[in-house]
Amino acid sequence: MKVSIIIMPKKAVLDPQGKTVQSALEHMGYDGVQDVRVGKYLEIEVKDGDPETVRARLDEAAHRFLSNPVIEDYRIEIG
Amino acid sequence: MKVSIIIMPKKAVLDPQGKTVQSALEHMGYDGVQDVRVGKYLEIEVKDGDPETVRARLDEAAHRFLSNPVIEDYRIEIG
Repeated sequence: MKVSIIIMPKKAVLDPQGKTVQSALEHMGYDGVQDVRVGKYLEIEVKDGDPETVRARLDEAAHRFLSNPVIEDYRIEIG
Repeated sequence: MKVSIIIMPKKAVLDPQGKTVQSALEHMGYDGVQDVRVGKYLEIEVKDGDPETVRARLDEAAHRFLSNPVIEDYRIEIG
């Protein structure tokens, strides 16, 4: 089964990479862009199992060492 | 409106960051992990407009300069 973990900088944290993309879009003529934030997308293929167990274990891994909880938020999507 | 662009290394391209995360998960006791790939997740807030127009313009931007089409694939999700 496929699990995605999306790790984003917290709203209160400066995101220089997002700002760079935003100003690149503006300079290339893409107007109407109000905000850009850049994060990481982990696509994980795990052995089939109970979705809630898989989620709980990956949630623990995401909290412990895949993300930096001080400056990042994450969410887990299954399927 | 919120638009997400997910940029992943192509399947045929080595993904050392993904391999590192995979072996980290294994070493920390998370078994059953078969593959990990790491990509970028862009969360873009754009002025409300016709979703198909927004998609077409961001598709062009993703192809032209947000991704590297030689080694990366991307997909766009609206809403």
